[in-house]
Amino acid sequence: MNIETQIEEANKKTVDVLVKGRPVWTDVQPAGDVIPNMKSNTILIAGPPIDVQKIVYPVKVALCGAAIYEGLAQNADEAWNMVLNGEIEVASAQDYSCACGAAMATSASMPVIVCEDKTFGGKGFCVPHPGTSLHVLRWGFYDDEIQRELEWFRDYYGPALGETVRKARGVDLHMVLAKTAGMGDENHNRQPAASMFMALHLLPFMLDSDFPKKDRIIKEYTANDRFFLHVMMAGAESVIYSARNIPMSTVMVGMGGNGVEFGLKFSGTGDEWFTTPAPKILGQFLNPSYTADDMLGFLGDSCVTEVYGLGGMSAVAGPGYVRLTGHDFSEAKRRTENARAVCLGEHKFAPIPWDDFRGFPVGVDMRKVVGLNIVPTSHGGGTLKAGGQGTAGSCDFPIECFKEGLVALSEKVKGAK
Amino acid sequence: MNIETQIEEANKKTVDVLVKGRPVWTDVQPAGDVIPNMKSNTILIAGPPIDVQKIVYPVKVALCGAAIYEGLAQNADEAWNMVLNGEIEVASAQDYSCACGAAMATSASMPVIVCEDKTFGGKGFCVPHPGTSLHVLRWGFYDDEIQRELEWFRDYYGPALGETVRKARGVDLHMVLAKTAGMGDENHNRQPAASMFMALHLLPFMLDSDFPKKDRIIKEYTANDRFFLHVMMAGAESVIYSARNIPMSTVMVGMGGNGVEFGLKFSGTGDEWFTTPAPKILGQFLNPSYTADDMLGFLGDSCVTEVYGLGGMSAVAGPGYVRLTGHDFSEAKRRTENARAVCLGEHKFAPIPWDDFRGFPVGVDMRKVVGLNIVPTSHGGGTLKAGGQGTAGSCDFPIECFKEGLVALSEKVKGAK
Repeated sequence: MNIETQIEEANKKTVDVLVKGRPVWTDVQPAGDVIPNMKSNTILIAGPPIDVQKIVYPVKVALCGAAIYEGLAQNADEAWNMVLNGEIEVASAQDYSCACGAAMATSASMPVIVCEDKTFGGKGFCVPHPGTSLHVLRWGFYDDEIQRELEWFRDYYGPALGETVRKARGVDLHMVLAKTAGMGDENHNRQPAASMFMALHLLPFMLDSDFPKKDRIIKEYTANDRFFLHVMMAGAESVIYSARNIPMSTVMVGMGGNGVEFGLKFSGTGDEWFTTPAPKILGQFLNPSYTADDMLGFLGDSCVTEVYGLGGMSAVAGPGYVRLTGHDFSEAKRRTENARAVCLGEHKFAPIPWDDFRGFPVGVDMRKVVGLNIVPTSHGGGTLKAGGQGTAGSCDFPIECFKEGLVALSEKVKGAK
Repeated sequence: MNIETQIEEANKKTVDVLVKGRPVWTDVQPAGDVIPNMKSNTILIAGPPIDVQKIVYPVKVALCGAAIYEGLAQNADEAWNMVLNGEIEVASAQDYSCACGAAMATSASMPVIVCEDKTFGGKGFCVPHPGTSLHVLRWGFYDDEIQRELEWFRDYYGPALGETVRKARGVDLHMVLAKTAGMGDENHNRQPAASMFMALHLLPFMLDSDFPKKDRIIKEYTANDRFFLHVMMAGAESVIYSARNIPMSTVMVGMGGNGVEFGLKFSGTGDEWFTTPAPKILGQFLNPSYTADDMLGFLGDSCVTEVYGLGGMSAVAGPGYVRLTGHDFSEAKRRTENARAVCLGEHKFAPIPWDDFRGFPVGVDMRKVVGLNIVPTSHGGGTLKAGGQGTAGSCDFPIECFKEGLVALSEKVKGAK
């Protein structure tokens, strides 16, 4: 079998996983109990691995906050020293099949959404979305109020979500995406339809429960029109789990930013991240006083949804978001067409009515990106250097990462000969 | 002022009402308490006035059921005799600013949604949607189970909805339509986004209430993804109220079918209905054994949503429905373009992303329909002769009604000279 055929066979396997994987939200459990290799002193952050000295300010705040919340340290200084001296182990969430939105730091006692790929068996994890307030750990803030909120999630909200979803015998994310097809979600930065649908889907199970603080939990859960994002991040990770490490495959299986560097992972190159200085997510500033100078480089793992074909990849499915961030419908269409040009698969369970009922693309092939010189566009929320969300916008996938990946794979192929 | 200018001035007024009217759901009250001129022996049915002898079977069943439910008669035979001898007064719902979906019969003790046009002061009415079961009075059935369901609505569900919406200080329907713009509803035959949004909008108020049977009411209310239809019917009627009776106006202000005849009303021709034999609503049969022969002619008032610019008029906003009923996206676009060609106004509060963020047309001008020979298409659910829903589909507005209306208005103008 020549190399081209080997690559094509490998990619077929990878895309098969991405297309046929069936992510189901099955549980909510403490991160340390369910994420393999996660220890009590492990704290997961977004993007490719980073020298802890270089960690950006909002992530540093979240990291130290998580350490205090865990009781690992008494205050931020102590926590930061423990990070520097290695007593606290900082790792890339995606290397643990977990995803951290924006500046989020995920620690062992935090409840995480557990998704299982019912076809291939992988699992993925993500904390429940904290709600629409920007004053949260996820955006790089930590104080007494946020500490109480983290405790609320650990002691009440997380366990109640877990009980509910177990009672519902899980929620099939393809079902959610199919039921809300043609309802304007691109499912990275815009998911009101999926969130509303899932809120109402689980509501009867919540009403029939008797967990403490039921009314507050129901109100909080059903009011959050971004709730589905973090479920989908865990769902994407659960499928991606089985798409990794397929020798010779040129398909993208990881994507994230740590604020300094942006990185991609590919199936055939294993655990390696291919990085480049992180581009900024620009579009609509959320406050007219903000400028591009206030923004960090790409930060966060929410773009694992893009790996799964959502967000900018299916921009045409959610054109309202593209308009919000300064463009028109044709730009939404262009983004999805670009993605289609470099993808090997298509999700067909959620047809897009205004795009001739086509599905959305999945499985970015680095050969196509480099060969055609076409890069997809990721949607995303940009983080301010001082913490908080500064933009809702987009950013092209940096082509450098694809080039590096291609070189690395070709070296690997040569080495294997 | 010549006649053309007079007509244009009149139409400007009518369209101004349709565009600037602000329908707000404010209450739920017994029909007899809030619908002007409704008496304890009045029963409202859909479409243009009909000789009671000609009333179609499902409406007859619903009428007699409503009479028994009201305690006006002991059984269907007695009820029907009272209809025939005039002891029960049957009237066209739209002549009372009420709307009856399909075979529905609305009687005095039934709770109705009350909508108020906060700009021009009109009120409109419609019973709450009965849920997705087809075994309901609305589809021409009546038995002990349905009797209990009507009592449940009267004694529990209706009052709880009223308490909730009063506590919420009303629900602005433009707000609902704007929040769910670009979410695939055409808001006649498809309204999951608006229904989900409104379910979640009112849920916290329900949780904070202590009306009896709270959990059952919450479950029933939040599970009904067609709930918004009947709210919108009442909302459309509330605005239409002030668009009626504007001398010289050629704008359509009423539309409905009684199963035998289809009728339209125009602003400048007052209370008169212009009728033609009712066309059938065809598209997707809900059971493969059904044929066109099983179907009644156009029955129901839910098309008052079309008068307000929704449904087939804004088909492009809800292309999923057009696909469901056997067509493709281009047909959805064609329907809205046709409507635009004969409309004088545009609702701009709910832009359609995949149609260059345009609004949806409102205010059908009978001069344009006849002059251009372009008829809009109404969406709708077709009723079986034996009762029940047989189709989800569509039907062109019959041009005959527009021609009759134009002749009548011109006679009126001549008479006034």
